[in-house]
Amino acid sequence: MMKIGVIGGGQLGRMMALAGTPLGMNFAFLDPAPDACAQALGEHIRADYGDQDHLRQLADEVDLVTFEFESVPAETVAFLSQFVPVYPSAEALRIARDRWFEKSMFKALGIPTPEFADIQSQADLDAAVAAIGLPAVMKTRTLGYDGKGQKVLRKPEDVAGAFAELGSVPCILEGFVPFTGEVSLVAVRARDGETRFYPLVHNTHENGILRLSVASTDHPLQALAEDYVGRVLRELDYVGVLAFEFFEVDGGLKANEIAPRVHNSGHWTIEGAECSQFENHLRAVAGLPLGPTAKVGESAMLNFIGEVPPVDKVIAVADCHLHHYGKAFKAGRKVGHATLRCADRATLDRQIAAVEALIAKP
Amino acid sequence: MMKIGVIGGGQLGRMMALAGTPLGMNFAFLDPAPDACAQALGEHIRADYGDQDHLRQLADEVDLVTFEFESVPAETVAFLSQFVPVYPSAEALRIARDRWFEKSMFKALGIPTPEFADIQSQADLDAAVAAIGLPAVMKTRTLGYDGKGQKVLRKPEDVAGAFAELGSVPCILEGFVPFTGEVSLVAVRARDGETRFYPLVHNTHENGILRLSVASTDHPLQALAEDYVGRVLRELDYVGVLAFEFFEVDGGLKANEIAPRVHNSGHWTIEGAECSQFENHLRAVAGLPLGPTAKVGESAMLNFIGEVPPVDKVIAVADCHLHHYGKAFKAGRKVGHATLRCADRATLDRQIAAVEALIAKP
Repeated sequence: MMKIGVIGGGQLGRMMALAGTPLGMNFAFLDPAPDACAQALGEHIRADYGDQDHLRQLADEVDLVTFEFESVPAETVAFLSQFVPVYPSAEALRIARDRWFEKSMFKALGIPTPEFADIQSQADLDAAVAAIGLPAVMKTRTLGYDGKGQKVLRKPEDVAGAFAELGSVPCILEGFVPFTGEVSLVAVRARDGETRFYPLVHNTHENGILRLSVASTDHPLQALAEDYVGRVLRELDYVGVLAFEFFEVDGGLKANEIAPRVHNSGHWTIEGAECSQFENHLRAVAGLPLGPTAKVGESAMLNFIGEVPPVDKVIAVADCHLHHYGKAFKAGRKVGHATLRCADRATLDRQIAAVEALIAKP
Repeated sequence: MMKIGVIGGGQLGRMMALAGTPLGMNFAFLDPAPDACAQALGEHIRADYGDQDHLRQLADEVDLVTFEFESVPAETVAFLSQFVPVYPSAEALRIARDRWFEKSMFKALGIPTPEFADIQSQADLDAAVAAIGLPAVMKTRTLGYDGKGQKVLRKPEDVAGAFAELGSVPCILEGFVPFTGEVSLVAVRARDGETRFYPLVHNTHENGILRLSVASTDHPLQALAEDYVGRVLRELDYVGVLAFEFFEVDGGLKANEIAPRVHNSGHWTIEGAECSQFENHLRAVAGLPLGPTAKVGESAMLNFIGEVPPVDKVIAVADCHLHHYGKAFKAGRKVGHATLRCADRATLDRQIAAVEALIAKP
């Protein structure tokens, strides 16, 4: 029995364990939260991410370590790597958790991005705004997620004091991109370099949080996206699942960001693809053959944010599969999702509307 | 969060928890085995099935109790029922765990069965053989499974001393049925009486143990099987999943036995049906709406008995989904299964052969 160590014990770890248990894997989650929701499915090592005693305990117990979030301190990864294989690598995490490193890598690899600039001070910001223009988006280089750690700058007044407003930490400024859509590509790369891609997903955000993902069929930008993502995977000698978010602009793609882990926009794959992103991530990090990424029917994912609608109502929608994370309900928190898997697109659109009707409007 | 108590913590409990966790359910398993394989997915109350202190603890912790096997002592069920809802009912278990009660119920409901007789002594056996003829099968009334607790009587010499050979316990004698196939129907009935049926499954046994189940398409006996199973479900006011095994004889069906629980011949539903037998069982006992029982593609299940073939080889078969139970390997023990879900029957047959080629021949 292979035992997998996961840094973080939230819903991504929980779904990883649901996918890995049938492969004969056991799980240990290191997470400081007493109510980490993955603990229902494995050992919970309750400790801070910098707690070397408990990191050592984890390393001693497991065959390999992986992550459910990218903001893990670099020291944690370096420490663990002395004792146990860690996937994805320290280098992949170093790049992915810092928007400056990330965007600079895209640029070096010839992947189009919005204009961007490194911001270490208000003076840097003023200069960058002069060069890039408004509107623009200022984001902390690290630790941002779900719309947190960013500020849209529309008018000159928004710029004054913005550096202090985001905490006087290193940031980047990104030029505004008049995008027509947001898509993401979830990819998986094995230890031997074999790479597979899921179909491109259309994403809809609300208040900076992903609300709806719809898997596409024969998307005209699939090949281009695979080309871009393949460059990054090879550059990082990446192992595991990686999600790449793009803006659709003028019939092309501009890179937004990567997540070096299983990703919310890939949750539809649990029922909607032959082999889910969770199983494929585990296959990759465990050195097992990758599974098929083809769709099973037409598929979409709706996030439940703040609360899960009544379970009986959600599962009464035909074609609907509930994923309740077992977390306490709280405004703005992702607490569950529903996957829809339908025979055709018209049915899918109807069922999306049926689930949306159950979601309480704030 | 609903908490489900399960009597038994083997692979059926394990797969129940894998299906119920995404519905927001937690699990507690009462099982005396220190290595009960469901414990990876819930609380393990390690106690004998007659241990009232621990049964009381279970009842206090959970919202309802269900079972993963039918040989639970009647007293256990009666004791639990004082404190917590128990599904299926004590009466359903009483009937299903005793072959005499079971066959007598079939007869009373007009469901064809092989000829059968109650055997309380060697004299009863001699008389029954005279009436029913040979060949015939002698089975203990209770506690038999996977070919255990039974003896085929072919010649008069086989009859002498057979009652003592099976332990001088109550038995039944069943006339031999020249069947052309074995099929099972997995059904689920909700608390409000709503009933759904999965497609009939063709089963192949080897040494009394199920080896291969193939889900059928438009089976000509589907309606007849549903009629028979419906009679039993209504008679028992049944709640949950029930599996009914039949012999195919002369284009009709003769009842073999029922299992008042999720069943090995329904494991293909995890990937092969819209909503699995495990999820539907939990929906039924929890008072939630039932899920669709339609097939997703063409599907089959192969048991891994004694050992699971190398994981990397199993999952390298396209369309193959591994279910490793995390149990110690041991001859004759069910330790895992593979589900195949394919676009068409020709592919399914090819992939069945591919998985069979991985199974070590004893």
